[in-house]
Amino acid sequence: MAVRWKVTIAYKGSHFLGWQRLPKGRTVQQEIEQLLKKIHREQVLITGSGRTDRGVSAESQVFHFDSFLRIPKEQWLKIFRMMLPSDIYVKEVEEVDPTFHARRNVTKKRYNYYIECGEYNVLESDYVYQLNRSVDLERMREAAKLFVGTKDFTAFNSTPLDIIENQVRTLREITITRQGSKVVLSFLGKGFLRHMVRMIVAVILDVGLGRMEISDIEAMFEQNDKEACKFKANAEGLRLMEVFYD
Amino acid sequence: MAVRWKVTIAYKGSHFLGWQRLPKGRTVQQEIEQLLKKIHREQVLITGSGRTDRGVSAESQVFHFDSFLRIPKEQWLKIFRMMLPSDIYVKEVEEVDPTFHARRNVTKKRYNYYIECGEYNVLESDYVYQLNRSVDLERMREAAKLFVGTKDFTAFNSTPLDIIENQVRTLREITITRQGSKVVLSFLGKGFLRHMVRMIVAVILDVGLGRMEISDIEAMFEQNDKEACKFKANAEGLRLMEVFYD
Repeated sequence: MAVRWKVTIAYKGSHFLGWQRLPKGRTVQQEIEQLLKKIHREQVLITGSGRTDRGVSAESQVFHFDSFLRIPKEQWLKIFRMMLPSDIYVKEVEEVDPTFHARRNVTKKRYNYYIECGEYNVLESDYVYQLNRSVDLERMREAAKLFVGTKDFTAFNSTPLDIIENQVRTLREITITRQGSKVVLSFLGKGFLRHMVRMIVAVILDVGLGRMEISDIEAMFEQNDKEACKFKANAEGLRLMEVFYD
Repeated sequence: MAVRWKVTIAYKGSHFLGWQRLPKGRTVQQEIEQLLKKIHREQVLITGSGRTDRGVSAESQVFHFDSFLRIPKEQWLKIFRMMLPSDIYVKEVEEVDPTFHARRNVTKKRYNYYIECGEYNVLESDYVYQLNRSVDLERMREAAKLFVGTKDFTAFNSTPLDIIENQVRTLREITITRQGSKVVLSFLGKGFLRHMVRMIVAVILDVGLGRMEISDIEAMFEQNDKEACKFKANAEGLRLMEVFYD
């Protein structure tokens, strides 16, 4: 009987065209499925907790797959760590109940967005947004409050309404902290829509830079259409930090 | 009359074949000289404070060049920042006396070596050595003491003796500290020989891992030949931190 495996991984987004398998080009899913095919000598598909866009990194992303091979979890961990390329790192492998589903069972996700407010940093530029100027944290925190709670995020994501009609989602918290010369925005919620975090970051950042007012955000919520917000923060600053299950 | 410019830069070593211009392949010197040639419409050579090997990064490297163009320093800064690729960052441009020499006038240099002792980090793996196990800092500090002061480093560098006969150099200090899950070895000295820091790090690390004893290092110093030490730590962990002038 097949065993279902839950796997937790980290990856460096700048090296991939994103999570999802594509007809052509290097993606995280494709790299992992390619290895699983080699091991199983047949195609084995994986199911991620959700996609990440091109350039977005993960400190902790989760997927599941089923295997008929009798390989213990310590062995899976060794195989993955030895055979996957160095920009994907398998943190944990667990045997789970066959009813576990990496996407459907998600209860919460945490995304962080990293902004370098100090001098340009050549070493971190693949995975930190290089703003290289100071921002007003208090104004940003004021702006962030508007997005917390259960809201219609139609204006703040790029999923078309004919694909997902109901764009009401719940953001549980947005915290904004300094880490050295960086500012980190941390989002906790269930169900993020496409580009939602990056669009919210762009708006909060514009407030922090004095290019936008709180009332402008209120107007965007009122307008409530796909034309309201035209910007999204760069992909490299975004990182999937954790996927939660019950 | 030509003006001599002193330029301070940072670069991401993993993207280059090293500092020095090569007949083929991407190097830091080649990228900068290529830009200066475009600006001057003739070849302009730069002189670095010294070379860095393939894979070695710099938070602060210095070079000088001479130019007949009447470009003020703020303008040079803008040109460099706009036209150099994103893995080279110009931090400062200063007009200096024509007698200033970026290599000959060096009084000290600081190199840091970064070791990740915690979990493998996909994001930092280009510029931190991934050891991913714990080390004994006290033993490492004991080992480091042997290298501080004026010593014959013949056994601990790969410059052949027929190229540089006198391999006595002075290391002013080696500090070893924890920075989160990383261990950082910081070297301050004048005149580092080729691979010297990386060979010393390899030996100190072997002591920290219990694979070598203090007496083994003493034996290497006594042997005092190019066969004594066969290892050097990986390039990616090494970073040129600062070049000092009077």
